[in-house]
Amino acid sequence: MNSFKFEILHTSKKSKARVGKIYTPHGIIDTPNFVAVGTNGTIKAIDNIKLNSIGLQLMFCNTYHLILQPGSTLIKKAGGIHKFINRNTPIITDSGGFQVFSLAYGSVASELKSKGTKKVNSTLIKITEDGAYFRSYRDGKKIFLSPESSVQAQKDIAADIIIPLDELPPYHTDLKTLEESLNRTHRWEKRSLDYHLKDRQNQAMYAVIHGGINKGFREKSAKYLSSLDFDGFAIGGSVGKNKIEMIEMLKFTMNHMPDKKPNHLLGIGDIASLKASIPLGLDTFDSSYPTKAARHGLILSKNKNIKLSRTKNAMNFSAIDENCTCYTCQNYTLSYLHHLFKAKELTVLSLASIHNLHFMVEYMKDIREKILRDEI
Amino acid sequence: MNSFKFEILHTSKKSKARVGKIYTPHGIIDTPNFVAVGTNGTIKAIDNIKLNSIGLQLMFCNTYHLILQPGSTLIKKAGGIHKFINRNTPIITDSGGFQVFSLAYGSVASELKSKGTKKVNSTLIKITEDGAYFRSYRDGKKIFLSPESSVQAQKDIAADIIIPLDELPPYHTDLKTLEESLNRTHRWEKRSLDYHLKDRQNQAMYAVIHGGINKGFREKSAKYLSSLDFDGFAIGGSVGKNKIEMIEMLKFTMNHMPDKKPNHLLGIGDIASLKASIPLGLDTFDSSYPTKAARHGLILSKNKNIKLSRTKNAMNFSAIDENCTCYTCQNYTLSYLHHLFKAKELTVLSLASIHNLHFMVEYMKDIREKILRDEI
Repeated sequence: MNSFKFEILHTSKKSKARVGKIYTPHGIIDTPNFVAVGTNGTIKAIDNIKLNSIGLQLMFCNTYHLILQPGSTLIKKAGGIHKFINRNTPIITDSGGFQVFSLAYGSVASELKSKGTKKVNSTLIKITEDGAYFRSYRDGKKIFLSPESSVQAQKDIAADIIIPLDELPPYHTDLKTLEESLNRTHRWEKRSLDYHLKDRQNQAMYAVIHGGINKGFREKSAKYLSSLDFDGFAIGGSVGKNKIEMIEMLKFTMNHMPDKKPNHLLGIGDIASLKASIPLGLDTFDSSYPTKAARHGLILSKNKNIKLSRTKNAMNFSAIDENCTCYTCQNYTLSYLHHLFKAKELTVLSLASIHNLHFMVEYMKDIREKILRDEI
Repeated sequence: MNSFKFEILHTSKKSKARVGKIYTPHGIIDTPNFVAVGTNGTIKAIDNIKLNSIGLQLMFCNTYHLILQPGSTLIKKAGGIHKFINRNTPIITDSGGFQVFSLAYGSVASELKSKGTKKVNSTLIKITEDGAYFRSYRDGKKIFLSPESSVQAQKDIAADIIIPLDELPPYHTDLKTLEESLNRTHRWEKRSLDYHLKDRQNQAMYAVIHGGINKGFREKSAKYLSSLDFDGFAIGGSVGKNKIEMIEMLKFTMNHMPDKKPNHLLGIGDIASLKASIPLGLDTFDSSYPTKAARHGLILSKNKNIKLSRTKNAMNFSAIDENCTCYTCQNYTLSYLHHLFKAKELTVLSLASIHNLHFMVEYMKDIREKILRDEI
């Protein structure tokens, strides 16, 4: 059974931006849309019932974290992730590969800063054709992640959309190593798909397009993976060392993607990147940015983002945004939020996160309306 | 104007326990009742609208913290504490004295452990007949707290019930020093009351009974303070180094208190202390214990309290308490809460705090019913 479906309602006359609907067993995702990151089965500082009121449609959970705690078999026993965390709307999980390799190589950002010289206290033990061996950061236990075991974990977790195992090569890598990595990733993704299709369990699988910052490899990856029976696509790996490079590479890659399937951009969801990549035909974007910013006291706003800690907020007895309909703006003043932040009260982490996620939900609604009017 | 009123509905045939109602400008407090501590104008990890659903009637805020951040004049400009924090039910503030002196001498517990030898990095500079000079732990600024300035701050904050400035003598103190401290506290409380009565502003003031662990002094304090025009009484200072001493001293002190006014026990609210002191005629109890316990993963329960971290909770797919009507028990399993706690997710701090406060609200409801049936 496969109740997953992607429907394009309108493609802009001005760009490749499109408005669509992704149908999943747990409901519809209007696209383009923002996907909040709930690594451990919760958005940080917001419980899942509260989250319902924000209108967020798709949540991203991390298989790497979930297999280490509480374990995928426990989630299966609980009746799957939706029941375990009490969330009845769509959920996507990744393969765990990103964390295994980014913890090994360091993040792209830290790697760029150190020009590849930074040594990371790696938890990765060995990569073989079979899969990757790594150590749990929780208890030091040796864990083996293969295409099949990752997909099995994601079947136990039972998210609506799952992702095949890929390798995340370091940003600083020679062409030969990058090509070897790409080829292995392609073999791993094929094995993941084969394993998935043996028993689809009403889940959809998105391929991850790789190829680093090499256009030839990106084209090869897009062509090969779109020839297989994936339900959608995600752009993964390093796409550039700055926004200009990133957009250039996304533009190039999107030219080689099929039109009729949903496209996801992995781990990127700031406003500038959204603005630049939605016209390229990208449909969904996951990012922990809005909630992380909230916990650092940065409030997203239509005009200029607001730093809660600023002294001038102390005497502002209005809401963050008087026109905002979020729970936080409906109930609390900027002055009070400033006070809670200065007093280091946990309450503000939740209230700021609610506002920032609501902001993203409204921002994407607005984007969809603009595409329908061919303004984007 | 004084819309404050205490009404006793029933006194038990079995003890001095009574069921009553405290009327305040922001609503009724059914007594006996538990008072949660919202130091900075929020219960930790629960916002004030969410808090409404728990049924907590009285919240305790700390003047010491509020004068340092955001400042009492800011709260006045915001329209008072209720408007500032968006809470429309009764609020009580203390004088700030407790924090000034407990930060100077250390807590009773730490002092007992160290037998009075422990040196505390004191923020107290000087005590004079006028008041106390101390340094802000936030910015090192020198601050003067007098009976008049404390009451003025509490008038600016505009809680329903306020408390006169007292001195909290160290537990280890000689009789002469204790008596001098008690006499000064009495003079300070009288000055506080006089200042308060000049412009009552529809606030009630509770005296704080002192005298340390000396029965003669406790009797003297009860008699003197109850001869003045206070609306209620609070028992403050060290009442003993263990529960047996505490109950003995409370019993003795309560024999010298007037019958018709509400009695509050400061800073004590664990179940064992509640059980022992409600039959003595104490009406309200503030404590940060239930929320602090929640943040440490300790869940209050009718039978045995539950440590969230325990491995056996991992596979418990029922609510904490199947009969509990709290938001947490209605929506989440013990297994999920255990997982969130192990994964160090902020969300669980809120969910556990909600359960523990709801537990206290229900516990006190049950106590009131038992008193009405003369079972306590």
